[in-house]
Amino acid sequence: MTTTEIEIRTGAYYDSVILMQLQRSLAEQPGVLDAGVVMGTQANKDVLAQSDLLAPQIETAGPDDLVIVVRGQDAGAAQAALEQVDELLSARSRGGGVDEEYLPKSLESAGKMLPGAQWVLISVPGRYAAGVAREALRLGKHVFLYSDNVSLEDEIELKQAAARQGLLVMGPDCGTAIVNGVGLGFANQVRRGAVGMVAASGTGLQQVSARVHQLGGGFTHALGTGGRDLSQDVNAVTARQGLDLLIRDPQTRVIVLVSKPPSPQVAAELVESARLAGKTVVVDFIGYATAVRRVDNVYFATSFDETAELAVQFASAAPQMGPQWELDLERFAPGQRYLRGLFSGGTLAYEALLFLQGYVPAVYSNAPLDKQYCLADSLVSQEHTVIDLGEDEFTVGRLHPMMDNDLRIRRLEKEAGDPQVAVILLDVVLGHGAHPDPAGELAPAIAAARAAAAQAGRYLEVVAVVCGTDEDPQDLGSQVAQLEEAGALVETSNDAAVRYVGQLVRALGAITVQSVAEPRKSVDVAVLNQPLAAINVGVESFTESLQAQGAQVIQVDWRPPASGDEKLMSILERMKKK
Amino acid sequence: MTTTEIEIRTGAYYDSVILMQLQRSLAEQPGVLDAGVVMGTQANKDVLAQSDLLAPQIETAGPDDLVIVVRGQDAGAAQAALEQVDELLSARSRGGGVDEEYLPKSLESAGKMLPGAQWVLISVPGRYAAGVAREALRLGKHVFLYSDNVSLEDEIELKQAAARQGLLVMGPDCGTAIVNGVGLGFANQVRRGAVGMVAASGTGLQQVSARVHQLGGGFTHALGTGGRDLSQDVNAVTARQGLDLLIRDPQTRVIVLVSKPPSPQVAAELVESARLAGKTVVVDFIGYATAVRRVDNVYFATSFDETAELAVQFASAAPQMGPQWELDLERFAPGQRYLRGLFSGGTLAYEALLFLQGYVPAVYSNAPLDKQYCLADSLVSQEHTVIDLGEDEFTVGRLHPMMDNDLRIRRLEKEAGDPQVAVILLDVVLGHGAHPDPAGELAPAIAAARAAAAQAGRYLEVVAVVCGTDEDPQDLGSQVAQLEEAGALVETSNDAAVRYVGQLVRALGAITVQSVAEPRKSVDVAVLNQPLAAINVGVESFTESLQAQGAQVIQVDWRPPASGDEKLMSILERMKKK
Repeated sequence: MTTTEIEIRTGAYYDSVILMQLQRSLAEQPGVLDAGVVMGTQANKDVLAQSDLLAPQIETAGPDDLVIVVRGQDAGAAQAALEQVDELLSARSRGGGVDEEYLPKSLESAGKMLPGAQWVLISVPGRYAAGVAREALRLGKHVFLYSDNVSLEDEIELKQAAARQGLLVMGPDCGTAIVNGVGLGFANQVRRGAVGMVAASGTGLQQVSARVHQLGGGFTHALGTGGRDLSQDVNAVTARQGLDLLIRDPQTRVIVLVSKPPSPQVAAELVESARLAGKTVVVDFIGYATAVRRVDNVYFATSFDETAELAVQFASAAPQMGPQWELDLERFAPGQRYLRGLFSGGTLAYEALLFLQGYVPAVYSNAPLDKQYCLADSLVSQEHTVIDLGEDEFTVGRLHPMMDNDLRIRRLEKEAGDPQVAVILLDVVLGHGAHPDPAGELAPAIAAARAAAAQAGRYLEVVAVVCGTDEDPQDLGSQVAQLEEAGALVETSNDAAVRYVGQLVRALGAITVQSVAEPRKSVDVAVLNQPLAAINVGVESFTESLQAQGAQVIQVDWRPPASGDEKLMSILERMKKK
Repeated sequence: MTTTEIEIRTGAYYDSVILMQLQRSLAEQPGVLDAGVVMGTQANKDVLAQSDLLAPQIETAGPDDLVIVVRGQDAGAAQAALEQVDELLSARSRGGGVDEEYLPKSLESAGKMLPGAQWVLISVPGRYAAGVAREALRLGKHVFLYSDNVSLEDEIELKQAAARQGLLVMGPDCGTAIVNGVGLGFANQVRRGAVGMVAASGTGLQQVSARVHQLGGGFTHALGTGGRDLSQDVNAVTARQGLDLLIRDPQTRVIVLVSKPPSPQVAAELVESARLAGKTVVVDFIGYATAVRRVDNVYFATSFDETAELAVQFASAAPQMGPQWELDLERFAPGQRYLRGLFSGGTLAYEALLFLQGYVPAVYSNAPLDKQYCLADSLVSQEHTVIDLGEDEFTVGRLHPMMDNDLRIRRLEKEAGDPQVAVILLDVVLGHGAHPDPAGELAPAIAAARAAAAQAGRYLEVVAVVCGTDEDPQDLGSQVAQLEEAGALVETSNDAAVRYVGQLVRALGAITVQSVAEPRKSVDVAVLNQPLAAINVGVESFTESLQAQGAQVIQVDWRPPASGDEKLMSILERMKKK
């Protein structure tokens, strides 16, 4: 008959590697069927129950207690295995890859032994991790905080403190990063290259970096932030620092931002910062639905594969942005700042409204995206306005504006007389059924409107989207030529035209990015480009991994302060702060 | 002193072309400064006011009254111009492109003159349009309903009646279509090719077709539906018919669906139908945010430009879907239908959940996309389940599952024993810091799980996503080989792996598409591929345009029934129905 034997050690601390190895060694003892070695949390008790290793006396164990369970063929075998525990534990200590005798016992002494260490890697149990991180910041070190089960309050406090010092805190629960070619925590070995990444997602970072490597690309740096960084509470302190570093890093040509769905407000602010990067940015906020694929230099991807493909593509050749018109703001008179879009095509107007969302906060319309921007009177524009002149209200007893330009020409004249108007956007739809020569009527009106504005000391930009083909009856070439002669900028892509207009009115409005982040000290970009040196506190295999990658590293022989007594710990910490 | 002279003609009907031309002719009379010729709607009165052409007596005119306004340099000039009205109107009648003497006066007689006409084009004023469309359906003709200002109730009634007869009603407010190379209404002249389109958007259809042509592609057919077709009320009657036609049309290889944001329910149903098309489908529901770019053969674009680019690309080469595994459902035992995903990487699990949304309605998780699918107990799977074993609850005093496979192997064994489980999905993350040989432990467990299932008469599919590079310390090649030897399907792309698994469990669940559309008669695909012949009722220039394109067409010399008397109209119509 099988028997389960149990031992509970109160307040004992061993790191997780040792517990895993102890469990395995016990399971290999003669006559042992299964074994479990866990801290006494409720979740771990549930796991034991799943493996038929739970017994009533374990219910009394707490999260700080080590629970050792052995199920044997009989009581003798189980008991014999349990008696091996101390010997197995001490065998493990002797056999470790790091010689413990020469290890520093504190972060402070480790810092003296390796003064060049910029980084402290922390993988101690969650309840001790924030204390170790505070100590690291006190010593002026950047922190890679692998530990999970760290409170949100501690995360916020640590990150804000670090930001004030110009230091990074990656994590908590930050599984991975690649700094200057060296992987911290879990990291795939990838080529060096022109892609830089900031990721609030461990396996997101790993999968994108592995895919980029598989596609022939490579990385400058890939910075983890911990999975909660883009929440409203944490406010992306680390992601903002990371993005800022990669913008300043001369080797990084393409920036990738990865996160699980962030707070919409935080996401919007990060995207705003990304637009000012002066570099192409690929964003994969997984599950973050966007109605457009691109705003200027920022591309929205929807999978790790697509993110990696875009990053590799843009690293080898900057993306084709279509024709780019120069933003010459000097030509406009003071006070000129509004767009008036006069469309004959309803869906072209709708697409224009959609793209303009990426440039200006509010555009009024008789067919708005959002009812709060519905014009009180379709005939009277307000601020930025896009009108669909083909809406039912305009076409009772009147031909569609694709056939009859009268209404549009009258409106053009009126808008051009408004001293606040800087740019007029209109579509010219060719094809069967449409006006036989729309440019023949619109071009003189455009020329007259521009001349009237010039007379009044203003510059009026007119942008025309021509929807047509070289086989249309109106002759596309001559339609475009007439419009251009009248001084209009002509595009055949609504996308390109609207993006230019969007950039123009955005620049004229001089929208300033208001960062809600606290004033903080900029992180020295040297942290990324110096040879990496680190102090490791916690899982020893991370030290071995860093050594294997050629980095300088020193392991701290860490023990819980005050043997894990939380009250005593907090007293000790308060003493240190003084 | 300038003077405004006004004439109001009660109950007079002229088509919009004649009104436009009258207004222009009046404006060109000697001494005339401006002129307006409009039906007396409130919107038109507002337009007159904008041009300073409104006078108090016009306020009394109603929507059925023709308002003629002339502003002259003096009373004499204005008065003289007004006196020309009848002569100008009759000059127009004589000068038209269509000889009115030989025109049929009714749809019925037009049908006799051109019995091969499949189509009736209707562009009479909105309040008469539904009546004409009913008459066209009664004669068994498909309807292209250009007119706007048609009620939603009429649209629903017309479309449902047409669907029962196997007829199409494109519109109301359908500006454009291309059938068999002939443009109806407004249409650009584009190349013939392999792209077919259904669009609930006039300029959407025009812009995408023009861009496809500009990029070297071409069209079989492009079918308009009217802008309200994808609303909940209309329920996409015409779009469903159009999609069905293009699926059956052998010349169409790529299908494009364009609409302004549709009802989410209607959109979801159309996408479901599109997935069964057996052809690549590009969807641009403008402003319709999606969190994924693709579900199987359906691609979501976010601009006309991107839609056109994808359509041209897929028409010349079917899209690369990545490695495709065969769906062999025969191997599974009855009752096997669930997926169990056992992830060590949190964001890989999250991406899997995101993609799976496109395949199965509900996937439970300890970190679900939607809280309603949160597992009651992380240790016990329900139906389809994806578990993140790296979540905090599993890692207190225990190494991360990327380092310690114990928990995952126990879970794998348990899931494999569940007779309802068909497929197990897991990630294997390589790299620095991770387990030195994860496949060395996982592969034997996979082989054992598969063997146990086989013993019980089941087939267990195991799919492994390996995240790693050829430079990782574990040796990617040997990791993959070990997993494959154990019988696992191995992918390096999470995307590809999850899509395969999604297809598999979707097929095993045999989800059937429940269409809420009424039972209806299929539209004969011949309507698209026969030479186009049409009857035109309304704007005469559409007849000229069809003639110029080489189509057979006959113009009806239409006048409002009962001289526009609505009561009499409705009596007449009821008499016809009998």
